[in-house]
Amino acid sequence: MSRFLTPRIAALPATVPFTGPETLERRTGRPFRARLGANESGFGPSPRALAAMQEAASEVWMYADPENYDLKQALAARHGCTPGHIAIAAGVDTLLGLLCRMVLQPGETVVTSLGAYPTFNFHVAGAGADLVRVPYLGAHEDPEALLAAAKTHRAKLLYLANPDNPMGSHHPGATIRALADALPPETLLVLDEAYAELAPDEAIPDIPAEHPQVIRLRSFSKAWGLAGARVGYAIAAPDLAGSFDRIRDHFGMGRISLAGALASLQDPDWIPEIRARIATARDHMGVIARENGLEPLQSATNFVTMDCGRDGDYSRRVLAECEARGLFIRMPGVAPLDRCIRISLGPEPMMDLVARILPEALRAAQGA
Amino acid sequence: MSRFLTPRIAALPATVPFTGPETLERRTGRPFRARLGANESGFGPSPRALAAMQEAASEVWMYADPENYDLKQALAARHGCTPGHIAIAAGVDTLLGLLCRMVLQPGETVVTSLGAYPTFNFHVAGAGADLVRVPYLGAHEDPEALLAAAKTHRAKLLYLANPDNPMGSHHPGATIRALADALPPETLLVLDEAYAELAPDEAIPDIPAEHPQVIRLRSFSKAWGLAGARVGYAIAAPDLAGSFDRIRDHFGMGRISLAGALASLQDPDWIPEIRARIATARDHMGVIARENGLEPLQSATNFVTMDCGRDGDYSRRVLAECEARGLFIRMPGVAPLDRCIRISLGPEPMMDLVARILPEALRAAQGA
Repeated sequence: MSRFLTPRIAALPATVPFTGPETLERRTGRPFRARLGANESGFGPSPRALAAMQEAASEVWMYADPENYDLKQALAARHGCTPGHIAIAAGVDTLLGLLCRMVLQPGETVVTSLGAYPTFNFHVAGAGADLVRVPYLGAHEDPEALLAAAKTHRAKLLYLANPDNPMGSHHPGATIRALADALPPETLLVLDEAYAELAPDEAIPDIPAEHPQVIRLRSFSKAWGLAGARVGYAIAAPDLAGSFDRIRDHFGMGRISLAGALASLQDPDWIPEIRARIATARDHMGVIARENGLEPLQSATNFVTMDCGRDGDYSRRVLAECEARGLFIRMPGVAPLDRCIRISLGPEPMMDLVARILPEALRAAQGA
Repeated sequence: MSRFLTPRIAALPATVPFTGPETLERRTGRPFRARLGANESGFGPSPRALAAMQEAASEVWMYADPENYDLKQALAARHGCTPGHIAIAAGVDTLLGLLCRMVLQPGETVVTSLGAYPTFNFHVAGAGADLVRVPYLGAHEDPEALLAAAKTHRAKLLYLANPDNPMGSHHPGATIRALADALPPETLLVLDEAYAELAPDEAIPDIPAEHPQVIRLRSFSKAWGLAGARVGYAIAAPDLAGSFDRIRDHFGMGRISLAGALASLQDPDWIPEIRARIATARDHMGVIARENGLEPLQSATNFVTMDCGRDGDYSRRVLAECEARGLFIRMPGVAPLDRCIRISLGPEPMMDLVARILPEALRAAQGA
């Protein structure tokens, strides 16, 4: 280990913590036939975004505007807040990392759900804080238990995704709002809304951007189909949203990416269209799950989590058998959520491939 | 100020520390006629890179490979090291920020030159470490004084850019190698080589990638013309290079950007061509400077720093008069370097614009 590392960094795991589909492809020497493990959108981005990005390629010799002014303005208009309520970075992951550095000191406590977003946990560990993990209640994160844990541990951050990943479930917005208003004074709610554009309207809480104890995170990686462009943003009170300026990489946004995100927002038809396509694919995936004896959980996202009805070892076998047949999917990492597998929704040919491969994979997993 | 900030973050300045040209354009309501302030490359990227990025736009719905495998392989081949010696991130700025977090603890000391890269200082402050600034020796960073300061202050990091920004000067590679080998054991040399591809061969030190006390930083933003794509990399011993995996955003690289960088490396003609174009523009800029009574400093980069022969107030007036006429240029931020202005090199029409605007700006600045 390098002798230059601080003790805190030296104590962190040294390996790449996230295995991408490309790593699996390199191991087997075969490309996946369908890539449905990372909740990317196989429907792609808005044609307007695509055109804007191709046009912006000729301007890529220039750094992007360090204030990200145009996108901030557009996002403020979209959300009915001021540009001062918006912070932009290269994806929600980057925002989570910055937030952890801004707020957490070593030894402080953070509350999340057991099996929730691992990249958040990664950044909490990087900041030297301690995680308290609250079990899910069935397929849902448990707001009451999360609140109780925040109070007990005087948590600095409480992370909750609504809609939830990896389960696809959601709580009514009113439940989230009540949680936000009941927080102990030392706790900030990190409300991950990466899937908000795909959720039923009632899942989106009516929380003013000014709320002093909530930061909401939004992504262009899911409904907008721009995962590889790296654009995410936060909505929070200006004293918090503006604080990202203290440590962020001011020239860190890609110029092509910003053009794509801005053009996406200027396409009023995209979200309705993608919601309709996702709904169709979701129905199809539900049929596929039931035909295979699996229980599709209700989904407010662009993936369907399905209960395989056995333990994690069985789900892992199903996953491996899917991978061996060219189907990249994922599953929750910890019990008891690991009774499930999770399949992203995409265009019809990809869903058809799931319909063909899943029964074979299940038979193979059962025979093992 | 948000009550959630840690004391260290709360003590940092709250404003955007870097004023981009777009901010200036918004203030005046007029776009610049030539953008020659940020050492971007108006020559643009390799045509192969452009084609690869436009093709990759259709794949932007996918996250990039979190191992950045293909680009790492290509960079290792280029530099005659293993992929384990390479760390990739969204630009040198991001690498500097990660490195500061990996290595620095509050209260530790970092040595740099007075007037050197401000973004490095920004990240040092973000990590809570203290900066010791060593004066330039004329137009050059002063290796002997930097080494002495590192020894005196038991510095954890010593930052040096070769070639240098903002002065454009360089030291022979042998001087840099000697500095690296003379470092006190607790000091890591951060060798910023953002302009390496544009420098004379003798400026590039023969330092093995295995060197335990050197980390070299390279950029696709300058010679490669991909500033807006955000791709940079570090070369270091594997125990240090690999440590970026402990805290970096594993899915943080843009997919289009990686395609552009990889295609750039596959174009063997690009660097020779851009070096020739830069050399022509540099000669032209030297003539322009002398015709205007300014002394062009020797440059190993894609910009020419010119001594205006007076104080910083005068240079600032020249800068303002250039801006008022649609010419975006920059200048070193602190005395005594601020006797100079710095103009990026670009295609002939941009250089012609400098030739037209600079005399007017100088007359106006002198008349003020």
